[in-house]
Amino acid sequence: MIDELGAISASPDHLTRLFLTPEHRRAADIVARWMAEAGLAVSEDAMGTVRGHWHPAGRDAPRLLIGSHIDTVVNAGKYDGPMGVILGILAVQEMVRAGFRPPYGIDVLAFGDEEGTRFPTTLSASSAVAGVFPPASLAAVDAEGISLRDALVAYGKNPDEIPAAAYDPGKVIAYVEAHIEQGPVLEAEGEPLGVVTAIAGASRLSVTVTGEAGHAGTVPMRMRRDALLGASEMALAVERIAKADPHGMVATVGRMHVEPGSINVIPSRVVFTIDLRSSSDMSRREALTRFEREAHRIADQRHLGVVISAFHEVATVPCYRDLQLRLRNAVADLGHRAPSLPSGAGHDGQAMSKLCPIGMLFVRCRNGVSHNPAEYTSPDDMGLAAAALIRFIERFQLPQLDSSTGGAPT
Amino acid sequence: MIDELGAISASPDHLTRLFLTPEHRRAADIVARWMAEAGLAVSEDAMGTVRGHWHPAGRDAPRLLIGSHIDTVVNAGKYDGPMGVILGILAVQEMVRAGFRPPYGIDVLAFGDEEGTRFPTTLSASSAVAGVFPPASLAAVDAEGISLRDALVAYGKNPDEIPAAAYDPGKVIAYVEAHIEQGPVLEAEGEPLGVVTAIAGASRLSVTVTGEAGHAGTVPMRMRRDALLGASEMALAVERIAKADPHGMVATVGRMHVEPGSINVIPSRVVFTIDLRSSSDMSRREALTRFEREAHRIADQRHLGVVISAFHEVATVPCYRDLQLRLRNAVADLGHRAPSLPSGAGHDGQAMSKLCPIGMLFVRCRNGVSHNPAEYTSPDDMGLAAAALIRFIERFQLPQLDSSTGGAPT
Repeated sequence: MIDELGAISASPDHLTRLFLTPEHRRAADIVARWMAEAGLAVSEDAMGTVRGHWHPAGRDAPRLLIGSHIDTVVNAGKYDGPMGVILGILAVQEMVRAGFRPPYGIDVLAFGDEEGTRFPTTLSASSAVAGVFPPASLAAVDAEGISLRDALVAYGKNPDEIPAAAYDPGKVIAYVEAHIEQGPVLEAEGEPLGVVTAIAGASRLSVTVTGEAGHAGTVPMRMRRDALLGASEMALAVERIAKADPHGMVATVGRMHVEPGSINVIPSRVVFTIDLRSSSDMSRREALTRFEREAHRIADQRHLGVVISAFHEVATVPCYRDLQLRLRNAVADLGHRAPSLPSGAGHDGQAMSKLCPIGMLFVRCRNGVSHNPAEYTSPDDMGLAAAALIRFIERFQLPQLDSSTGGAPT
Repeated sequence: MIDELGAISASPDHLTRLFLTPEHRRAADIVARWMAEAGLAVSEDAMGTVRGHWHPAGRDAPRLLIGSHIDTVVNAGKYDGPMGVILGILAVQEMVRAGFRPPYGIDVLAFGDEEGTRFPTTLSASSAVAGVFPPASLAAVDAEGISLRDALVAYGKNPDEIPAAAYDPGKVIAYVEAHIEQGPVLEAEGEPLGVVTAIAGASRLSVTVTGEAGHAGTVPMRMRRDALLGASEMALAVERIAKADPHGMVATVGRMHVEPGSINVIPSRVVFTIDLRSSSDMSRREALTRFEREAHRIADQRHLGVVISAFHEVATVPCYRDLQLRLRNAVADLGHRAPSLPSGAGHDGQAMSKLCPIGMLFVRCRNGVSHNPAEYTSPDDMGLAAAALIRFIERFQLPQLDSSTGGAPT
């Protein structure tokens, strides 16, 4: 199934499957066929999300939602997204086969806009399901100038029906997603599966350091105002601050642009970026404050200017404690430990958390590689994930996790 | 005179006057006219160097050479080069006017290829005068694919006559050049003139640091192999090594290229340059060894790879001690201190040192700015430099600085 979806691409050479494209249509049709074959009733909402419904306790019974996404980045791996949809279908298929009849229903959801590659929007499909899609996003345009609204119409959808895609929060129990880790932690721990504690909040900053250009041969060291040396110290400060954080903070200087960029000219201006994530919003904010203080101290010492601007900020979304416990117990039944770890990457769960408690199961991937054709998760590990998901559903106790009594995520 | 030469450019908007171009021709013709007006006999050698001869003691008497260059970089300042030629002409003019008749002659030289902007050669004009021009350089081509040989022919020269441009070392006493400092030291010391101790040797390195790319959100800090953090530490090590050197070493990381250069990807590869200069070749070599050791220590600690390649190396050319003293005395006669300082930038004296002892007088420039239209040296400072040069010539004692007895530069 992974291979069949992985072959549906805009390019013959690599995997690229963007939101509301012909490739999205073909992938959605295959997923719908699989759902039907597994015994699910299939529908598709106004944002293109394919929904497979299994309602053994009737249409009014509360529902457990299981899902992931079927869109990809450009030159993607084939596991990121599709695996979670496939595991949901397989788990329900097994329920049906085993004649399991729980007092709740299950909807398997295949979202189409998690990566945010085509439009400058992200999570629009899951936002619609959660009832928090902002209508202003319909005006967002892709690289060809096509708006999200026009792309939806071309895909055969009616944008006016998006509000109807929202679930009634009173009828939803929880949202659970299995996803490849996209990081190296489980591999390093020798564990196939892990339980996500939170989807980390993130801040992105742009830092501009200004000094003074000068001849590399004629300006004595003590008279220099070298912007690159200041930026280097600041990059190391970013690392130091993240390493000192007890909440598994990660911080990255991914871009650094040096001007004028000549071998024999002292750098006068450096612009670099910081991507900082933590599963604690408080520690993230503290780290930003600490960095700001450090950057100004370094700049003062070197007689440099520094301007820091935050251009992106997403709050942490904690996974529901009870769901974490249930997922861990399900994995424990299979003889594995399921370490807890935060998700540094974003997921549809961020939008779904506006609707109901969320839980996530991570599956080990080779070398932590993702968003790359080298992305790989073994059939054995995926099999364990399917078994864990089935176990999770089998052992699910309705009253304890009714969203109307479960309270807010902790 | 500075303004007249400064107006001769390939562009109406800024000053660009490259070797063997129509602009070079026009500048050479003006310089030849000034020389003739000052009482010098004018010739031009096979490399386009304009020579003004003043031989009061006859053609066989030993000669003092005074010169600089009339080519420029792209978008240049108007003092870098022409000032030294003009001061030489004015000094001889004053000698002639005053009826001074020394037992030696003076040749004023206007070189045309000091900046090395047009061809991937440098100092070819002064190398020809010094008798060390490498014939292989005739094959060097400019950006339009024109070879130096063809450019010389188009300029009306016969490349076969280049060897005849060389002076007889037995007939040359010394080469003296006045040049703007191109750095901020004299301005900071409040002195209009300085005496150059040496033209600093230089090493240029390319350093490649390799780590491992990874998702900025999912790879824990302790599992990262971030090439940019390693490169940042190495850049700071370069600074530390240069600052610790007692010979006024300068070292610059001018370029730094980060791959893949995405805000949310851990840098996997960084390439940066080092430009390192010192007036002591030994301290420069020691610094390179120290950097190599430091870079490998940093790479080992961070589990990174590092490859260091030196792609450019020029030895230090010391200025002749006796000439330094004479220049300083000449400036002292005018009531100024003339601090000693190395030249971090390259000069025609590097080639001329193969022919005879060299001496250089630096003139203060505003903010240390050069190779830039903002380059500026005041008429007062240039006047002092002219007076110092005249004083230097007047007080020059022949026997003490005959190159055949003066020994090697110290």
